[in-house]
Amino acid sequence: MSLTLTDIRAAKKRVDSYINATPILSSSLMNQWLGHEIFFKCENFQKIGAFKARGGLNTVAWLVENNQKPKHIVANSSGNHAQAVAYAGQQFGIPTTIFMPEYSSQVKVQAARGYGAKVVLSKTRNITDVLVREAAGEAGTYWIPPFNHEQVICGQGTAALEALTELDDIDAVFTPCGGGGLTSGTLIATRGLAPKAKMFGVEPLNANDAAESLRKGSIQRLSGIPNTLADGAMTMAVGELTFEFLKQLDGFYEVAENDIVYWTQWLTHLLKCRLEPTCAMPMQAVVEWLKTQNTKQRVLVIISGGNMDQTTSQKIWEWDYLTQKPTLR
Amino acid sequence: MSLTLTDIRAAKKRVDSYINATPILSSSLMNQWLGHEIFFKCENFQKIGAFKARGGLNTVAWLVENNQKPKHIVANSSGNHAQAVAYAGQQFGIPTTIFMPEYSSQVKVQAARGYGAKVVLSKTRNITDVLVREAAGEAGTYWIPPFNHEQVICGQGTAALEALTELDDIDAVFTPCGGGGLTSGTLIATRGLAPKAKMFGVEPLNANDAAESLRKGSIQRLSGIPNTLADGAMTMAVGELTFEFLKQLDGFYEVAENDIVYWTQWLTHLLKCRLEPTCAMPMQAVVEWLKTQNTKQRVLVIISGGNMDQTTSQKIWEWDYLTQKPTLR
Repeated sequence: MSLTLTDIRAAKKRVDSYINATPILSSSLMNQWLGHEIFFKCENFQKIGAFKARGGLNTVAWLVENNQKPKHIVANSSGNHAQAVAYAGQQFGIPTTIFMPEYSSQVKVQAARGYGAKVVLSKTRNITDVLVREAAGEAGTYWIPPFNHEQVICGQGTAALEALTELDDIDAVFTPCGGGGLTSGTLIATRGLAPKAKMFGVEPLNANDAAESLRKGSIQRLSGIPNTLADGAMTMAVGELTFEFLKQLDGFYEVAENDIVYWTQWLTHLLKCRLEPTCAMPMQAVVEWLKTQNTKQRVLVIISGGNMDQTTSQKIWEWDYLTQKPTLR
Repeated sequence: MSLTLTDIRAAKKRVDSYINATPILSSSLMNQWLGHEIFFKCENFQKIGAFKARGGLNTVAWLVENNQKPKHIVANSSGNHAQAVAYAGQQFGIPTTIFMPEYSSQVKVQAARGYGAKVVLSKTRNITDVLVREAAGEAGTYWIPPFNHEQVICGQGTAALEALTELDDIDAVFTPCGGGGLTSGTLIATRGLAPKAKMFGVEPLNANDAAESLRKGSIQRLSGIPNTLADGAMTMAVGELTFEFLKQLDGFYEVAENDIVYWTQWLTHLLKCRLEPTCAMPMQAVVEWLKTQNTKQRVLVIISGGNMDQTTSQKIWEWDYLTQKPTLR
C-alpha cells in the first residue's frame, strides 16, 4: 500500500474549490463533564451533507487531471454515495446515472435528482448491481465505487487533513467505519500529520464485519442485512484496499444500539447539529478509551454526515436519554 | 422610543468577547427549489444554544460599565432565558439564582447549573414569580427580565447587526416573535443598516397575542397556556417597550402548527442543524411573502435557537413531511 500524506494533500488541492471547509465544533459542557477536550470535525455541513462528497469529487477530478474525463459516470447506492457522485458529475458537467433501490429514502432520491443526475430505481439492490455493471461496460463510462478505490480513500482523508492542520497535539482520532474508506483516508492523514496520535475505527456491534475480519485476519461478510440504526456502517464487507489500512489501526470498537441512540441524542443536543446515528457511534468508543487514560486528552472525532429520514429520526427520539448526563463514571 | 443603531453597536462591543459570531447558512437545494436566496443567521450555534445569551450578557455588561455591578443576579424562566442569565452571571463572576418551575425540561435545568447558577425549583410558574420578586427586593440584587428591557432588546439586536454587516442587499428580514425582544432588536438593526428592507414578525397561530395586540392597538394577553410546539413564542403577552417596536413592522404572520412541523423537518434536514420549532416558523411566512413577489429576493431569517427536549423532538418527527418538497406553487 503506497498511499501517503502526499496523496491526501494532492486530493485536497483537487477538491478544495468544490467542497466546504467544514467547521470543528466542541461542547464546553461536555468537555467540562468528561474532563477532556473533544473536537468534532463536522462533515454533516459538507456538500451533500456527508464526507462522501470528498471521495466522489476527488475521483472525478483525478480522472480529469489525467486526461481520462469520462463521458458518463455511474454508481449504485442507496445512501450518501449516490448524492456524492451526482454532485461530482454536476460540478464537472458530466452526465451521471445513479442506480438506486426503490426502498431508498425519498430525500436521497430527491437530492441526487436535485444535483442533476438521472436516477434509475429498481426493485432490489441486486438488480441495481446488475444494471450498474452493464452501464459501466459502455465505452467512456466510469463506475465510481463507494470505498474500495485509492482516489476515493484519498478524498475522504482530506477531512482529517483539514482538522489536523487546524488542531495541535491531538492524542487520538476516532472515525465510524462502514466500508472503510473514511477510516483508511483518516489513518493516512493521521499517521502523516500526528504520528504520535492513536487512531481507532468504530462499528455497530450489530454490523461488526470489520471487527470480525480483523479478529480472523481475513475479510468477513455479514450474513444478512444487519439490524442497526447506523445505516452508514451497514456495509456487508470492507474492501481489499481498505482492509489493509484497517489492520494498521491502534484499536477497533463495537458499539451497542442503545449507546448509538444515547450519543445521537446528546451530540444533537450539545452540538446543535443534525447528525446520522453512524457518526454518534464513535463517542461511545471515545468514552471507553478515555476511561483508560490518566491524563487530560485531546480527541478528534470525524462526524461523518447528517442525512437521515423521518423514520430514523422518529426511532432516535422514541425514548429520553437526555436525562442521563454524559460522564466517565 | 429612542433606541437606535448606535445602541445596538454599543451592545455589540460589550458582548463581543463573550459570544459566538454565529454562522450564516444557506441551502443551495432550497434556493433552487424556491427560486430565491434565503440566508439563515444561526443563533442555535450561539452560547447556551440561543440568541438569548446576547441580551443577558449585554444587560450585565452594561450594568458593570455603569458602575452598577450587582452582587447577585436573579431571573425566573422555564426556557432559554434561564441559561442566558446563568451564563452571563458566570462570565462576570456574579452569583446567580434562577427560579424555575419543576416542570422545566431537565436539559435546561442541567445547563443552568452547568453554568454555575443556583437553580431553585418550585411547583408552579406563579410561585417562581413570587420568589424572584422577593429575591429582587434584596439590596444589590438585579432582576434581569426576559424581553421588556432596553439593554435586553439591544443585545438581541446584535444578531441582525452581524448578519446585515456580512450580507448586502437584503430585501426582507423575518424573526420569530415571543415577548418581542428579538423582533424589536432586529427591527432597530434593520432600519439602521438596511433601510429599504421589509421587516416581519412571525407568531404561532395558536399563540397569536402579538398579532391580536397589533390588530386591536393595545397589548392583549393569551387567556390560557397556548397549545403550540413553538415554545419559544408561548409568551402570554408582549411588553410595553417591545410593543412600540412591533407597531413599526411591515407585517406580521401567524403560522399553523402543521406548517411549523413541516419547516422544522425541512430546515433540520437541509441546514443539518438542530433547531427549535420556534425558529422554523418564519419559513412559512417567508414562503407566503415570496408568493407575492415578482422578482428574485434576498431574505434573512434569524434562527433563534436549538434547545429542544426529547418530547418535542418526538412530536416533530411523528409524521413524514420530507416527502413533500418545498415549493412556491
